[in-house]
Amino acid sequence: MLSFTISGNYTDLYQLNMSEVNFLEGRVGHRVCFDYFFRSIPNNGGYVLFAGLGDVLNVLEDLHFTQSDLKQLRSLGFERTFVDYLEKFQFRGDVYSAREGEVIFPQIPALRVEGNIVEAQLVETLLLNILNFQSLIATKASRMRRVAGERILSEFGLRRAQGPAGIMATRAATIGGFTSTSNVMAGGLYNIEVSGTMAHAFIESYESELEAFRAFGRSHPRGCIFLVDTYDTLHSGVPNAIIVAREMEAAGYKAAGIRLDSGDLAWLSKEARKMLDAAGLQYMKIVASNQLDEFIIKSLQEQGAAIDVYGVGTKLVTGYPDAALDGVYKLCMINEEPKIKMSENIQKATLPGIKQVYRTFDKNNMFAGADAIMLHDEDEPNTMFHPFDLSKHMDLTMFSKEPLLQKVMDKGRISANMPSLAKISAYAASRISQLPAEYKRFDNPHVYKVGLSRQLLDLRNELANQHKTQGHLI
Amino acid sequence: MLSFTISGNYTDLYQLNMSEVNFLEGRVGHRVCFDYFFRSIPNNGGYVLFAGLGDVLNVLEDLHFTQSDLKQLRSLGFERTFVDYLEKFQFRGDVYSAREGEVIFPQIPALRVEGNIVEAQLVETLLLNILNFQSLIATKASRMRRVAGERILSEFGLRRAQGPAGIMATRAATIGGFTSTSNVMAGGLYNIEVSGTMAHAFIESYESELEAFRAFGRSHPRGCIFLVDTYDTLHSGVPNAIIVAREMEAAGYKAAGIRLDSGDLAWLSKEARKMLDAAGLQYMKIVASNQLDEFIIKSLQEQGAAIDVYGVGTKLVTGYPDAALDGVYKLCMINEEPKIKMSENIQKATLPGIKQVYRTFDKNNMFAGADAIMLHDEDEPNTMFHPFDLSKHMDLTMFSKEPLLQKVMDKGRISANMPSLAKISAYAASRISQLPAEYKRFDNPHVYKVGLSRQLLDLRNELANQHKTQGHLI
Repeated sequence: MLSFTISGNYTDLYQLNMSEVNFLEGRVGHRVCFDYFFRSIPNNGGYVLFAGLGDVLNVLEDLHFTQSDLKQLRSLGFERTFVDYLEKFQFRGDVYSAREGEVIFPQIPALRVEGNIVEAQLVETLLLNILNFQSLIATKASRMRRVAGERILSEFGLRRAQGPAGIMATRAATIGGFTSTSNVMAGGLYNIEVSGTMAHAFIESYESELEAFRAFGRSHPRGCIFLVDTYDTLHSGVPNAIIVAREMEAAGYKAAGIRLDSGDLAWLSKEARKMLDAAGLQYMKIVASNQLDEFIIKSLQEQGAAIDVYGVGTKLVTGYPDAALDGVYKLCMINEEPKIKMSENIQKATLPGIKQVYRTFDKNNMFAGADAIMLHDEDEPNTMFHPFDLSKHMDLTMFSKEPLLQKVMDKGRISANMPSLAKISAYAASRISQLPAEYKRFDNPHVYKVGLSRQLLDLRNELANQHKTQGHLI
Repeated sequence: MLSFTISGNYTDLYQLNMSEVNFLEGRVGHRVCFDYFFRSIPNNGGYVLFAGLGDVLNVLEDLHFTQSDLKQLRSLGFERTFVDYLEKFQFRGDVYSAREGEVIFPQIPALRVEGNIVEAQLVETLLLNILNFQSLIATKASRMRRVAGERILSEFGLRRAQGPAGIMATRAATIGGFTSTSNVMAGGLYNIEVSGTMAHAFIESYESELEAFRAFGRSHPRGCIFLVDTYDTLHSGVPNAIIVAREMEAAGYKAAGIRLDSGDLAWLSKEARKMLDAAGLQYMKIVASNQLDEFIIKSLQEQGAAIDVYGVGTKLVTGYPDAALDGVYKLCMINEEPKIKMSENIQKATLPGIKQVYRTFDKNNMFAGADAIMLHDEDEPNTMFHPFDLSKHMDLTMFSKEPLLQKVMDKGRISANMPSLAKISAYAASRISQLPAEYKRFDNPHVYKVGLSRQLLDLRNELANQHKTQGHLI
């Protein structure tokens, strides 16, 4: 069987090259700090939901190089002493992080790794791989959750997912507000409700639709949902579903519903609802699927479609159209010395030192539209400054404040409570409810302000001025 | 550790629901046939490269339900007798397929599964999951291969890949024409060359760039590639790389090259090339990375950029912007009886019966722009018909022909030679070279004609006419 395991070699070769150098040069004792943050919000949105933390911490806690990993590294020519070191490798660093399900914005250091130079560097790839993807999908899911009102959202994406990404996509979709999945393995792995209906092929394999429905109702009466569009939704599918649902009632069962998978879902759902109600089958739900995304769901809701459950696949599990969050992992400290990475201009400069982020709240406990990044040992900020324009600053004294980063891993052991997926999802929902509507709209959402404390700003500018000279020829 | 295994529960719940019904209704003996095909080409392209077959066959050959899978199914309420059946489940069907690396077009049945109604249905999800994703990425990779001329393409995408999809993405990129990867695990799993350079954080962790380069050259002299844009590419990075490369020469080593990761890659590469050449380091290669895709590579090539290796990440491994191939798996036969799925209109009707596809070739052995789909027991076609417009047909007598589908799995055992990844990639390259340029251009590529034999067309139309009545109320 094909199996994908996140062990030591789940990384880029250069992480191992650099680590070998650090090992051979006797630098393993160097203590470094890296920040995880992203620069732009996918899908022209106004926020990102931070997701993947639980998986990352579980991976870090027992990360090791398997015998097969080590064998491969030997064959690649890595030094024997270094491979021996990796054989005993364990991640023993500290991790500070925003809560999983937090609403985050560009530039905010949502997670920080402190550790020795080898362990902190080696985990970069897996950390980015998991956090970037799950945050992308949780964010996409939350956009659908927002427009779906009270309706149920179910994830149906495995067949169009990017290979085994389908499993993680289900977890992330749950964080964003989906409550069930068609994906059996993900349901088992992450304890998510699984649900499913039937396919056209099943119905076609019978001489008639009615026979197919009867067989299904007879042999699988629990949660029975009839797919009604194989032949003619309103003239065949729904009437046949009604016949069989009534027969099931006589046998003591209740059919769960019908599924629409083609045609005008707004109109068909309303017509089907009338037919089911007229037949006394008010309890039967209507599930709709077929290339749904947040825009189509919004439109269906606005049209008053009689849809109880939206089944969403491709565009959810691939994060379409952006397909990736651009999260990065940047060095901010080495041996107590703050570091920045400059690139061509100060707009892309990273933030030095060990930092904390304060979120501000207005008197209604809504997010006040201003997150302040500061050095971790500063007092709560009263003013925050625009990152590049000193003339712009904002008074924060009238807001209550909350630090976003907390310690979640201590010397390689998970040190915070690990919430269940249901709790993470509830937290995400509560935080999104605190985010004012203008940041959540799909078209030109308001830009959330992220500012710096004066001390952090000064440090960043000082290092930026030194920076150009550091690399020059000696 | 987190591990994702493609076992029995790597599927949608409805596959198991339907299979339970088929099992309980005594229908396991029904023999069915499903076709895999897709409807539209991603990224407005003119072709798709068929990829993923090797992985699919390996999975099918030992597909089973693990004890953990079975436990979950019991907890979901599946009937004990059905779970007992699944405990012994093995896939024992036959598979016919195009060769992996084949150039394919919409509507072509690229793969066919024949088996009992349970096994053929249960594998739908995993088959779509693997083929859709790998074909998407192989196709994307081949677009980059086409514009990169003789330059090396290296896949750098794991950190932005959709979680564990990064592993399969590497395999598919290789089929499309990439020859190395940064992804260590994928390299080991699929026997692909791994390559890597160094990161900015490594350089920043030293007091100076020169020191960092020296340490790297000293401790990791094999394949040493200096990242030169941390401070100032032309005034610091390249001069420091030259100093260290010369020092390495004195110690008997040759530095492999430099990497550019920001700025104007066309201009910087030309300037850096001149500097390296002037220093007698003609053997040092220039690697470029930073948000590359086929359009940027094409532009760099047109500008005469002095880039030897393109390192491509996000947009390759996510298939950006389309992120999914819309491949489907449709019933075409049950117990010798051909079947179609109609949907709303005949344009979306599937093709009934067991089929073969003939590709036609002109006298130069180039693809003739016409693939003919026919029933598998017909003679080679002399004419093909437009699928919906009988007045349009095409004479094929002047072309040589080749059937695309061959048996690759017999009663659950792989029955064809399984080519190495290198051979699959070479086959893909040879087939793409047979595809005329107008189908490969990025803007409005020519549409490849796919037609039907008269016999297949008549069967499809006959079933379409019967179809409407099948579902009606009895």
